[in-house]
Amino acid sequence: MKFRRSERLVDMTYYLINHPRELVSLTFFSQRYSSAKSSISEDLVIIRDTFENQGIGTLQTVPGAAGGVKYIPKVKKESAQEFINQLCTLIADPERLLPGGYLFMTDLLGDAQILNEVGKHIASAVSDRDIDVIMTVATKGIPIAQTVAHHLNVPFIIVRRDNKVTEGSTVSINYVSGSSKRLQMMSLSKRSLKEGAKVLIVDDFMKAGGTINGMVNLLSEFNATVAGIAVLVESEYQEERLVDDYISLIKLTDVDVKEKRIQVSPGNYFSEQADFI
Amino acid sequence: MKFRRSERLVDMTYYLINHPRELVSLTFFSQRYSSAKSSISEDLVIIRDTFENQGIGTLQTVPGAAGGVKYIPKVKKESAQEFINQLCTLIADPERLLPGGYLFMTDLLGDAQILNEVGKHIASAVSDRDIDVIMTVATKGIPIAQTVAHHLNVPFIIVRRDNKVTEGSTVSINYVSGSSKRLQMMSLSKRSLKEGAKVLIVDDFMKAGGTINGMVNLLSEFNATVAGIAVLVESEYQEERLVDDYISLIKLTDVDVKEKRIQVSPGNYFSEQADFI
Repeated sequence: MKFRRSERLVDMTYYLINHPRELVSLTFFSQRYSSAKSSISEDLVIIRDTFENQGIGTLQTVPGAAGGVKYIPKVKKESAQEFINQLCTLIADPERLLPGGYLFMTDLLGDAQILNEVGKHIASAVSDRDIDVIMTVATKGIPIAQTVAHHLNVPFIIVRRDNKVTEGSTVSINYVSGSSKRLQMMSLSKRSLKEGAKVLIVDDFMKAGGTINGMVNLLSEFNATVAGIAVLVESEYQEERLVDDYISLIKLTDVDVKEKRIQVSPGNYFSEQADFI
Repeated sequence: MKFRRSERLVDMTYYLINHPRELVSLTFFSQRYSSAKSSISEDLVIIRDTFENQGIGTLQTVPGAAGGVKYIPKVKKESAQEFINQLCTLIADPERLLPGGYLFMTDLLGDAQILNEVGKHIASAVSDRDIDVIMTVATKGIPIAQTVAHHLNVPFIIVRRDNKVTEGSTVSINYVSGSSKRLQMMSLSKRSLKEGAKVLIVDDFMKAGGTINGMVNLLSEFNATVAGIAVLVESEYQEERLVDDYISLIKLTDVDVKEKRIQVSPGNYFSEQADFI
C-alpha cells in the first residue's frame, strides 16, 4: 500500500518519537510507505522544522549508505524555564513539609505528565553524550530513571538497599550516607551491568551526595564509567559535597519548619548546558 | 503564525500522543495553529485513519460545544500477538533460572522499549474503563505502574513494605503472602489516595495473588474501589487463587529447575478483551 504524505507525516512522527537517538535509514521509511527516498527526505525536512519550531526536538541526518535520521529529544530554553518555574512553585507548597524538615514529593514522582517532562528535560541536557544505561537507587529514583531511559532509548538499572533472591548474584558495597554519616549497604545484580558501560546516574534528591557517591563507587566494581549525574532536586549543603559534576533541575535553598516556609530556585540546569533548540 | 496542514499533522500527532484520554477541544487546536475548525476537523480524520491503520490507537470525537477529540491508546490484535509471543520467547530463556526456581526478570523491567509496549498493551485493554489512578507495590511493580500510567494519563501510587519518613502519615495493613503463607506488612501514604478513587492495580508477577489481595484490602481502608487488576506474568497455581478477575500478558506454566526448562504461554490477554483496533 502506498502512503500519502499526510499519512506518512503522522506515522513517521509517531515512529521517530518512539525511537529517540536511534538511526533510522531512509530505506526503512521508503519501504514502510512504498514511497521514493526523495519524498521521504522532503517529509523529514517538514518534521525537523516542525519539531524545532514547536520545541519537540530535532532530527540529525547522517549521510552516506549507512546513513539515515535520528530523533534527538531537545527542549527550548523558554519552555524549560516555564516548566522549571512551575516545578519550583509546586515544590515550595508548605503543605509538603513533613516532621523533621522532610518534603513530601511522592505525588510529583507519581505524576505521569510531570515525570514525562522531567525525563525529556534531563534527556535534552545529556542527549549528545555517549550513554549506555541509566542507573538509580530504589525506591524514589526509579520513576526518574525510567522516564530518562524512555527519552534516551537506553535501559535502566536499579541499585537496591536490600538483597532479593530474584536479583541473582549481586555485588554489594558499603557506603557512608553523606548527611547522616550512617554506614549503609547497596547492591546491584551482577547481570545488570556490562563491563565498560557508560552510565548516567540519576536520583530524585541529593544533599551531601553520599548515595550518589556510593553508586559511583559501585560502578568501579563493574569497571563501568560515569557518563553523568542528574538529579531532580539538590539541597543546599554547608559542608563539602561528595559529588561536584552534576545537573539539577531544582535547588532547595532553605526549609524553615517553624515558619512553614520552603525556598526553592532553579537548579544548575541552565548554567550546565547551553544547547537548547 | 499560521500553520500549514503538514506542520499541523506533525504537531497534533505529538500533542495527542502525549495527552492520551484527554479531551482536547477543536478551539484549542484552531487557536494553536491559527486555522479554521473545518481544517482541524479534516486533519483529525487523517490522523484517526492513520492511527487505526498503523495500530497506534484511535481518536474518539465528542460532539457539541463542550466537545473535542480524545486519543485512545489501542493495539491491533496481530501486533499484540506478535509482541506477546516475543515476550514469551524472552522469558522462556533458561538463563533466567535462579536458585529456588525464581526467574531473573530485572532486565525486562528495565528495558525502556519493552516497558513502553507493556504499558501500551495494558492501557489498550482497559482504556474504556473509568480509572483515576494506578497502584502497585515496590519495587518491581513500579516500572509497570509508571508505563501504564503514562499511557492512560493518570497518576500512579506505590505501596511500600517499609515505612519511610518521606511518605508522611501512612495507613498500614498486614496480609498473608499467598504462596509462602508468611504474614507481611504493606503501607500507603495517606495523602496518596483520595476517597472514592477508582484504582487499577498492576504488578509484575502474580502467583497465589496474596500481594494483590493485600492491595485490594488496603484500598478498602481508603474507601477506594478496584477498577481492574493487570499483571505482566501470572504463574500457574494449584490451589485456589485469592484473585480471580485480572488481565495477564504472560502465563508461566512450568519451571523445571533440574531440566533447566521454563514453559510460558500467552496469558488471558486475548480472552479477557475483544476490543482491538
